[in-house]
Amino acid sequence: MTADATRARQRLFVHDPITAGCEIELAPEQSHYLEHVMRLKPGTPVKVFNGRDGEWLGTISELRKKKGRITAGTQLREQGTEAGPTLVFAPIKKQRLDFLIEKAVELGVGKLQPVITQHGITDKVRRDRLQAQVIEAAEQCERLTVPEIAEPVRLLDWVANGAEDHHLLFCDETGSGSPIGEVLSQLLAKGAGSVIDNINVVNHALVIGPEGGFSADELERIRKQPFATPVSLGPRILRAETAAIAALTVFQDRIGDWSHRPVARD
Amino acid sequence: MTADATRARQRLFVHDPITAGCEIELAPEQSHYLEHVMRLKPGTPVKVFNGRDGEWLGTISELRKKKGRITAGTQLREQGTEAGPTLVFAPIKKQRLDFLIEKAVELGVGKLQPVITQHGITDKVRRDRLQAQVIEAAEQCERLTVPEIAEPVRLLDWVANGAEDHHLLFCDETGSGSPIGEVLSQLLAKGAGSVIDNINVVNHALVIGPEGGFSADELERIRKQPFATPVSLGPRILRAETAAIAALTVFQDRIGDWSHRPVARD
Repeated sequence: MTADATRARQRLFVHDPITAGCEIELAPEQSHYLEHVMRLKPGTPVKVFNGRDGEWLGTISELRKKKGRITAGTQLREQGTEAGPTLVFAPIKKQRLDFLIEKAVELGVGKLQPVITQHGITDKVRRDRLQAQVIEAAEQCERLTVPEIAEPVRLLDWVANGAEDHHLLFCDETGSGSPIGEVLSQLLAKGAGSVIDNINVVNHALVIGPEGGFSADELERIRKQPFATPVSLGPRILRAETAAIAALTVFQDRIGDWSHRPVARD
Repeated sequence: MTADATRARQRLFVHDPITAGCEIELAPEQSHYLEHVMRLKPGTPVKVFNGRDGEWLGTISELRKKKGRITAGTQLREQGTEAGPTLVFAPIKKQRLDFLIEKAVELGVGKLQPVITQHGITDKVRRDRLQAQVIEAAEQCERLTVPEIAEPVRLLDWVANGAEDHHLLFCDETGSGSPIGEVLSQLLAKGAGSVIDNINVVNHALVIGPEGGFSADELERIRKQPFATPVSLGPRILRAETAAIAALTVFQDRIGDWSHRPVARD
């Protein structure tokens, strides 16, 4: 890495296209953050990405009064693919939800699908707040994409509509399923020819119930679907956010992108 | 499960031995919690465990003015073994440390070893505070044991003293190691005959660096040890608590107790 790239401690998600030498307008909050929180000056190197054009080394070319611009320099990483599974989750209490979202992004979630369940504690989801957290986590963990946060839907409606063609691994805390790692390794070994046509990770959805668990009705209706496999997450009772983090981890380890090495670092 | 066991929503860790019909004195904080937070009355069924005698159904026999007693009834679960790996971690900021501790207990950690590292943000560890969190998490996740929290030590002192005979899986964020899942499956396949004499999970320690990573000196000295194996945790930068949670999850999935089903639940 060049000295400038090493010095670029800030990494920003931007909406504009990025090409060599282009000028990128920052959002007022980003400018405020760089100027008043990080106390950076024009001339400071930063990294930028937009989910489409890879990662670039840029330089702050203007920064004052909530107005900021970056001049893009050289490309540091190409975009490549960054496919991850969908996480289907019931909203939980604020601090635990924040944690779930941050960790899911770090663990390479492809899409976040909030669902309203019968035992859930809330059906309110502030998507704008989650969106800001998802961007912050993506900037921090060196992802090149920002996962989508879908509109909340009722779990059973989502299932009845074919779950958007996903294969569901639903974390069934009654213990009816086989251990998640075994199920995933079997999927990998089977490959084509089963309900799962291929091991394309974006076709999978990990479904986590609320703190109160799925209702009997929900469990019965999910279990009936040919595209749903119950899985267990060990012998202990996991909180909802722990179950989500653990399921994503095992997914990435067994059939996801954890076979890839980290990008070069010092 | 009996109706009383199903009704027993509270689960308490106690220090006294538990036998059928015995009276168990509660700590003043426990009594206060049951009386004033949960608003329970004498006669209410509760579950108790002490890390040695399994889990018992009991009944509150006295509860007033911070004085409480439980009368033990029938045993619900035998003690059995609950072995888990050691987690070696550098203290991080309060909220993130709380989360790490709670999740580690849910994921079956055997022992928590705080270490002072060269890039760590703090060398202060409030063991009494961590102890209370560990107990609360163990009560909630239905463990039968409460993991030990060891005295903090300097990482390099701990390593120089043979790391208490553990095999170290150190999460090396420079990416020098193979993926953790692969390393664990190889250990399992090799069994005896290697540096690892057996797959006794308590012989393993997962070592997680601080937010700033291990220092060059620390990395070099850990890598030299024949009892240390570097492992990687995928292509993204994980926060320290995410790395700890993810490493423990993969450990339990690959060679730990996740092949066991959950205890029977409704």
